Amino acid sequence: MKIPKTHPRYASLMTREHLVNGVKGGLTALEGLMAHGRGEAFDYIIGERTQPFGQWAMKAAIAKLLLAERPVLSVNGNVIALCPKDYVALSKATGAKLEANIFYRTEDRVKRIVGALRKAGAKEVLGIEPDARIKGLNGPRARCAKAGIYCADVVMVPLEDGDRTQALVANGKFVITIDLNPMSRTAKVAQITIVDNIVRAVPEMVRLTRELKGLPRSKLEGIVKSYDNKKVLSEALRFMSERLSKLAKS
Amino acid sequence: MKIPKTHPRYASLMTREHLVNGVKGGLTALEGLMAHGRGEAFDYIIGERTQPFGQWAMKAAIAKLLLAERPVLSVNGNVIALCPKDYVALSKATGAKLEANIFYRTEDRVKRIVGALRKAGAKEVLGIEPDARIKGLNGPRARCAKAGIYCADVVMVPLEDGDRTQALVANGKFVITIDLNPMSRTAKVAQITIVDNIVRAVPEMVRLTRELKGLPRSKLEGIVKSYDNKKVLSEALRFMSERLSKLAKS
Repeated sequence: MKIPKTHPRYASLMTREHLVNGVKGGLTALEGLMAHGRGEAFDYIIGERTQPFGQWAMKAAIAKLLLAERPVLSVNGNVIALCPKDYVALSKATGAKLEANIFYRTEDRVKRIVGALRKAGAKEVLGIEPDARIKGLNGPRARCAKAGIYCADVVMVPLEDGDRTQALVANGKFVITIDLNPMSRTAKVAQITIVDNIVRAVPEMVRLTRELKGLPRSKLEGIVKSYDNKKVLSEALRFMSERLSKLAKS
Repeated sequence: MKIPKTHPRYASLMTREHLVNGVKGGLTALEGLMAHGRGEAFDYIIGERTQPFGQWAMKAAIAKLLLAERPVLSVNGNVIALCPKDYVALSKATGAKLEANIFYRTEDRVKRIVGALRKAGAKEVLGIEPDARIKGLNGPRARCAKAGIYCADVVMVPLEDGDRTQALVANGKFVITIDLNPMSRTAKVAQITIVDNIVRAVPEMVRLTRELKGLPRSKLEGIVKSYDNKKVLSEALRFMSERLSKLAKS
């Protein structure tokens, strides 16, 4: 069952193995594997590199997180399987709280995610005892922490379901997401959409936090004000279109 | 855990559930879920409909299967989870043998796939006792049946790994594939690439078999001869590029 090192897509196959291990360790839902696959396809189209539209969105996202009063970084089964340490580092750098909050919610899986975050260095993690509900959603996927997402002003929900993103925005949250599909409902509904692979984006966001942290509020506000999410999504689509068009001619 | 009927992507979520059930039933590998996700992304870009480039490839594929002396339809864990009955119907209509042949091979999974094919109406299924190897591959993924893929002149390998497709072509097989990603190695290496969702393609191929079956050999040969896989792939890329470009402007 071992993937031979001679396989031309060895690196990509190994990343997939991390997610498969996430499933086997009870962290990642089976549906999360399909979501990763969709992301992989779009990542392939953008050349598996961070592009300018991603960089712009990341800068605005960090400025917004630094300006926020009650920022929260949401964690699901894919986030924890793909970049646990970098995500915890981002929480520490920005001062945003961590909350395990998943679509296919089971209490067992939430506990495992919280455990994995602690193992990756997190001190406080919300989500185990949800005491509030996101209005406009039904079922277990509505549950959240009052001290976390429920009261947050800015929430980052990477690799999120469209229905939930929409509900968060309807509840007055400023929503940041990481989503490789610029056509997804999450991408369109969020206020800042980072169209990039989370594995590349989160470490870069940690670096950007260090860069922006010393700036005065007015500078950070300027970065957020001049940001245009519609333009970012349209740039991402244009980039993908051009890349496919070049390939069609080759 | 039940998906609410009110979810805007209910149909797509249900298809995913079939694959998840495939995994739970020991038919589909976890990696197959990610492969499905990649396919979903490309399907979304082509508008979740069969396009002219897919139709052209299907017609050529059926003509080639009808002309073949020892045609084989390969079955993996995604094929069996997504369209078992239609796939068996295609085998019956074209007279091609069925062989369970999987990348992440375990004997248990092969047995389950063969069982599911029988349940879907198949009489003879190869693959349980592999007695040959595909040259140029190592490990369990090289194993196949002498009376099946090993001696076949035409092989259909839908949703296949690029390494294996390449090895089949190197072994002198005429390879037909179904792959939503026109940039994949499988898509580029196969002689006929159907860029379409297997769930739509296989029933349409059954219908095409009935349409083409009565034609004289010379007509079928003409269909195969005039087929141009490079053009099909380039058309698929061009179509995707234009669709993204339109979305970028909207």
